[in-house]
Amino acid sequence: MTVKQMQATLGQQAVIAAKGLAKANTQTKNAALSAIAESIENSSEELRLANQKDLQAGKERGLEPALLDRLELNDNVIAGMVEGVRQIIALPDPVGSVDGLKYLPSGIQLGKMRVPLGVIGIIYESRPNVTIDAAVLCLKSGNATILRGGSEAIHSNLALAKCIQAGLQKVGLSEQCVQVVETTDRAAVGALITDDQHVDVIIPRGGKSLIERISAEATVPVIKHLDGNCHVYIDKAADAQKAHAIAMNAKTRRYGVCNAMETLLVHADMVDAVMPGLIKAYQEKGVELRGCSRMQAHDASIKTAQEEDWETEYLAPILAIKVVDSCDEAVEHIAQYSSDHTEAIVTQDVTTADKFVREVDSSSVIVNASTGFADGFEYGLGAEIGISTDRLHVRGPVGLEGLTTQKWVVYGDGHIRP
Amino acid sequence: MTVKQMQATLGQQAVIAAKGLAKANTQTKNAALSAIAESIENSSEELRLANQKDLQAGKERGLEPALLDRLELNDNVIAGMVEGVRQIIALPDPVGSVDGLKYLPSGIQLGKMRVPLGVIGIIYESRPNVTIDAAVLCLKSGNATILRGGSEAIHSNLALAKCIQAGLQKVGLSEQCVQVVETTDRAAVGALITDDQHVDVIIPRGGKSLIERISAEATVPVIKHLDGNCHVYIDKAADAQKAHAIAMNAKTRRYGVCNAMETLLVHADMVDAVMPGLIKAYQEKGVELRGCSRMQAHDASIKTAQEEDWETEYLAPILAIKVVDSCDEAVEHIAQYSSDHTEAIVTQDVTTADKFVREVDSSSVIVNASTGFADGFEYGLGAEIGISTDRLHVRGPVGLEGLTTQKWVVYGDGHIRP
Repeated sequence: MTVKQMQATLGQQAVIAAKGLAKANTQTKNAALSAIAESIENSSEELRLANQKDLQAGKERGLEPALLDRLELNDNVIAGMVEGVRQIIALPDPVGSVDGLKYLPSGIQLGKMRVPLGVIGIIYESRPNVTIDAAVLCLKSGNATILRGGSEAIHSNLALAKCIQAGLQKVGLSEQCVQVVETTDRAAVGALITDDQHVDVIIPRGGKSLIERISAEATVPVIKHLDGNCHVYIDKAADAQKAHAIAMNAKTRRYGVCNAMETLLVHADMVDAVMPGLIKAYQEKGVELRGCSRMQAHDASIKTAQEEDWETEYLAPILAIKVVDSCDEAVEHIAQYSSDHTEAIVTQDVTTADKFVREVDSSSVIVNASTGFADGFEYGLGAEIGISTDRLHVRGPVGLEGLTTQKWVVYGDGHIRP
Repeated sequence: MTVKQMQATLGQQAVIAAKGLAKANTQTKNAALSAIAESIENSSEELRLANQKDLQAGKERGLEPALLDRLELNDNVIAGMVEGVRQIIALPDPVGSVDGLKYLPSGIQLGKMRVPLGVIGIIYESRPNVTIDAAVLCLKSGNATILRGGSEAIHSNLALAKCIQAGLQKVGLSEQCVQVVETTDRAAVGALITDDQHVDVIIPRGGKSLIERISAEATVPVIKHLDGNCHVYIDKAADAQKAHAIAMNAKTRRYGVCNAMETLLVHADMVDAVMPGLIKAYQEKGVELRGCSRMQAHDASIKTAQEEDWETEYLAPILAIKVVDSCDEAVEHIAQYSSDHTEAIVTQDVTTADKFVREVDSSSVIVNASTGFADGFEYGLGAEIGISTDRLHVRGPVGLEGLTTQKWVVYGDGHIRP
């Protein structure tokens, strides 16, 4: 059987499973999630044995310690997955909800009903717990999934898939609601992302290069999460204390996250009021500062920012700083260099705040708060499958609702159109 | 200059124009629309002269009369375009509206703001009035457009573009908010649909083969409108009078529209109650009937439906009819053969109606009303740029809102994330 044929089989099974799952009510889906959580809890021995095979193979292949660390399914990771599944049970089911039902002049009643997307292909890298996180979010929103994890985690992923399938079977749902690609052949990824006959959307989770490659080659629509080159702009009408707190939090809360600030823009009139304190605080935390020439003129300890610094998502204790002369200049800089993920302004001036919110074209635009809030949990989505930097369908944190679509529903009483 | 370079130039200009247009307020956009309507009215002489060139060339190339007819810009068509622009002025502007603004437990205030998609590529066939219809819908929703019409309408399209650009200029908006591809080289279509650096979405308007070709080759996301193989199902609990009215209206109101019924499904228990009257009424209107064997057993004048009849969008006075034994069988038939555009059920039973609405996976699902209602005007969208048979982003009639996306907006007061 070729890789293409294998994908066609997976795809056909997923389409049939998705139809059954779309009809399942909330109670059945929650019962399945509960059974999956139990099954993971009861399978910790098998999960660790399977994971040992992956860890052993990884060591032999000379995987870096950081990657081996991400690969490990220890008690904490397993407990975290179980807890994650239980949290999804508590979330409201988006499927079947009807928005805006209203009577129109013709007499018909019109609304929009949420329905699952159908079949979702998830492509991810080494962390095996994504197998559970992604599958249960898709399951709750009524979608069948085809999961393709990293080849280095294949035994762990297949063992996790068994737990999921045991849970599905227990409540009478098709095991094929969640399928893991069994081959580690790389061509299977190509077959999955071009199977537009069966797959409705691809969600890649991983580094930028993986996502760019998939987007370029996929014929199935892709919900992309590229990089987060996020900005904070301290306006001339900023409150200096709020500016300090927000700029510190946005950079130093965690360095390796996509909503961390990577470039700080400061209005020239605010440099003296906020930068001495910020520079000191950053340097105490070990953050390397790279500034424009005006920033360097203010403080000679700051390194020179090169053109590529403005484009870089450091994901590290490094910060680029630029002095600007207006909100317009800040908006222009963001338009040129941002990855359109998240930008924040600190200002007490409502007109400037409104202008920034309206003109900055990013998936989250924030006034007087840290970029760290751009996150599915903080936005009340309960959990997120990723953060979309796309424009179509869904932008920013993608929760259960982002995994659904809407159809129009019309109720008449024998109405005909003139 | 190669076609690819020409597209890159158009694309860059469109991106810049789109940024300016996204900032334009409703008043400015409406003033531009008003100036465009005036410009069209004042240019009827130039428009007819340009159109004469296309008609002459079309005649020389031996275009069919129906195509020449669609190509013609006469007084009626021009008045229709002007009226269309004035209707768009009256529609509410979706840009900048904020949905669901609320305080979250962390203290931040969160909502979603509607913003334009950016740059929209429209590819259409012979009717030159699409140049105006599409451009003004995109303009009102804050999007820049690159329009690529049929080569047989090139002079008309360029003359219409001049009217649009005169209107834009009059209110100080960039003329490049609306650009028409000047070359009739077919390679320009390929360059447009693969220019993902500048173009955010492609909307093709035309026949199924055009749309399939574009979808297959595009790397820019496409909002597709494929065929409308629509069904009406007369349930065993149907009111016979409503069933008759709806089945007649859905088929015979207009034959050539995508929301016309192409297959009628009738519950076996209702055949005697509704089919004699329906068959008579269809035959009086000259509708050719093609049925399953049970339908033929009921009335020998009905022709035999072949397998391909169930798949066909006739767009003609032909109707396929099938007898089914349950709502489940109707739902199954629809799942197998429908193009997922619009399906209707006629029933007085609420449980059956709910089941049909929930289980039929089409962009519009209708209870006790004609499929003819599946239309942007009937749904209160004011105008539509097409009907999406896609699942992502927008399904069914696409109005101004479908040409926008949402970004998250967050308001804090110095909030940092713990």
